[in-house]
Amino acid sequence: MPSSPCAPEEVRRVACVGAGVIGGGWVAHFLARGYDVTAWDPAPDAEEKLRRLVDAAWPALERIGLADGASPDRLTVAATAEEAVADAQFVQESAPEKLELKRSLLARLDAAAPAGVVIASSTSGYPMTDMQTEAADPGRLVVGHPFNPPYLIPLVEVVGGKQTDAAAVEWASRFYKVAGKSVITMERELPGFIANRLQEALWREALHMVANGEATVKEIDDSITEGPGLRWAFMGPCLTFALAGGEGGMGHMLDHFGPSLKSPWTRLEAPELDDTLRAAMVDGCDEAAGGRTIAQLVAERDQGVIDVLRATGRLPRQRTEGTDGIAHNSSTMGDEK
Amino acid sequence: MPSSPCAPEEVRRVACVGAGVIGGGWVAHFLARGYDVTAWDPAPDAEEKLRRLVDAAWPALERIGLADGASPDRLTVAATAEEAVADAQFVQESAPEKLELKRSLLARLDAAAPAGVVIASSTSGYPMTDMQTEAADPGRLVVGHPFNPPYLIPLVEVVGGKQTDAAAVEWASRFYKVAGKSVITMERELPGFIANRLQEALWREALHMVANGEATVKEIDDSITEGPGLRWAFMGPCLTFALAGGEGGMGHMLDHFGPSLKSPWTRLEAPELDDTLRAAMVDGCDEAAGGRTIAQLVAERDQGVIDVLRATGRLPRQRTEGTDGIAHNSSTMGDEK
Repeated sequence: MPSSPCAPEEVRRVACVGAGVIGGGWVAHFLARGYDVTAWDPAPDAEEKLRRLVDAAWPALERIGLADGASPDRLTVAATAEEAVADAQFVQESAPEKLELKRSLLARLDAAAPAGVVIASSTSGYPMTDMQTEAADPGRLVVGHPFNPPYLIPLVEVVGGKQTDAAAVEWASRFYKVAGKSVITMERELPGFIANRLQEALWREALHMVANGEATVKEIDDSITEGPGLRWAFMGPCLTFALAGGEGGMGHMLDHFGPSLKSPWTRLEAPELDDTLRAAMVDGCDEAAGGRTIAQLVAERDQGVIDVLRATGRLPRQRTEGTDGIAHNSSTMGDEK
Repeated sequence: MPSSPCAPEEVRRVACVGAGVIGGGWVAHFLARGYDVTAWDPAPDAEEKLRRLVDAAWPALERIGLADGASPDRLTVAATAEEAVADAQFVQESAPEKLELKRSLLARLDAAAPAGVVIASSTSGYPMTDMQTEAADPGRLVVGHPFNPPYLIPLVEVVGGKQTDAAAVEWASRFYKVAGKSVITMERELPGFIANRLQEALWREALHMVANGEATVKEIDDSITEGPGLRWAFMGPCLTFALAGGEGGMGHMLDHFGPSLKSPWTRLEAPELDDTLRAAMVDGCDEAAGGRTIAQLVAERDQGVIDVLRATGRLPRQRTEGTDGIAHNSSTMGDEK
């Protein structure tokens, strides 16, 4: 591919193709970050729905702070996909999750966008190798997978396909960072990428439980928000499990709970916990800890859980005598860190 | 079993048997809630480790507010399991996750504890039916499964075994609520209960990815904390996925992403998404939403994500000009809800 016509820092005009929940969320994000956004979606009521989504998101975006000059007025809705991308400096495709549709649409966008401009797909899990087959210049096609809502959840997973130029992956990763996202750049393709593989495993287990009458939707949701979900907002599943090993960390945890991997505690069969995997988990946790001791991580986790409980209204902010007869302290959320 | 010698509200003395990470965490929780706690653990350095754990947790517990009279001084370490439970009004067992050990220990505790006193096991996933086989009075044995750390994460899953009296399950559920926990009382046994089945599915997928070199520990952790983990702190996986369906909610989401259940986005095979399961998910989400509209849920989710981002230090509290050139607003964490 020709190299991108501008540096990630110089992008002013973004095209969003597909304006449903995810595409519309991207529109809101890019508008809030001060970009000019041109959107297109084939649905007859797409523009009305899109503007409603942006209007609904805007108060939240104002609260977290808009870029200078950011405005919903900088959204243009184009009549065709080709028009939407005609002078774009970056293209985000968020069409429905259908492989054939993605293939042909990406080929159309590639044909219509200025040479060298990077085109990213929001696909939830298709490898770009499978989607870039019809494009004349597949080298500029990357996956840029966001989470709902894209205007608030930082993560974007960036990965190319077999025909993608490494420079396009690098450019997209840099651009998303400039545009305020948190980026994981993957070196190899994996169906579902990383986060979706994790949440898809959880989700499928949830569906099994509902299908079998083992738990209700509400019990499933409550079990996460009152339990592991509080930790996962700031410390991932590996480090939090390492802390279940006490002063022995991940190694002790694996030795203690390793046999549980054989238990039918989910429908998902575990891999063999051999010495290689054990070492990879222990070393990986050491790397993720970045020099923090177990005691430091425990203190961080405790403070994090308290902050999250307070932020989500499950600990009072003011000293009150609760119905449980227990006095809660008066510190407000902001003064503890 | 004889009925419990006291009402859940009247409990003053709790015994904690097993004082590792989970047992010690329970000790810290019950102490902070103002109970007298007697603990026992067979490890030679158990008392020293336990007191260190309680001391490490105490500052966090002070910050969220102690019950009147709560003190680490109200911890007694007993010389034997029998001595620990001799005059307890509630017993929490948190021994290592070994079925034979749990079986014999629960029988010992049953033999030594006052008649009728409820004995709960912290087991991560064994059904009580499998653990209560050796006890003389299995009717008072229940599972009370906490999350690490028990002194901060609210959830406790309560469920009995085949020989457990319904009254013991009810008593334990009530007691945990009085003691400040958030309780899910399960009507039937399920290995791993609810939350652990969900997080175990995620965890096993994570282990597979590390074992295959598909992702690093740090990427896995970051993919959760920067992505879905932010939502799960306050809105469970079902309701958050419902919002991926836009104004059509869970029904539209299932219609759109249903085919993805056939994709290899995790090693876990999904159940068949037939009309019955579709209806159960849609109705379950309606129930969980409790009358809140999709628009209201979106607004709640957005505010929740912002609160969690700010509480965990990923949005600034003060107006600053970031390195990204984007101005952030000055609201402090406490003034938005």
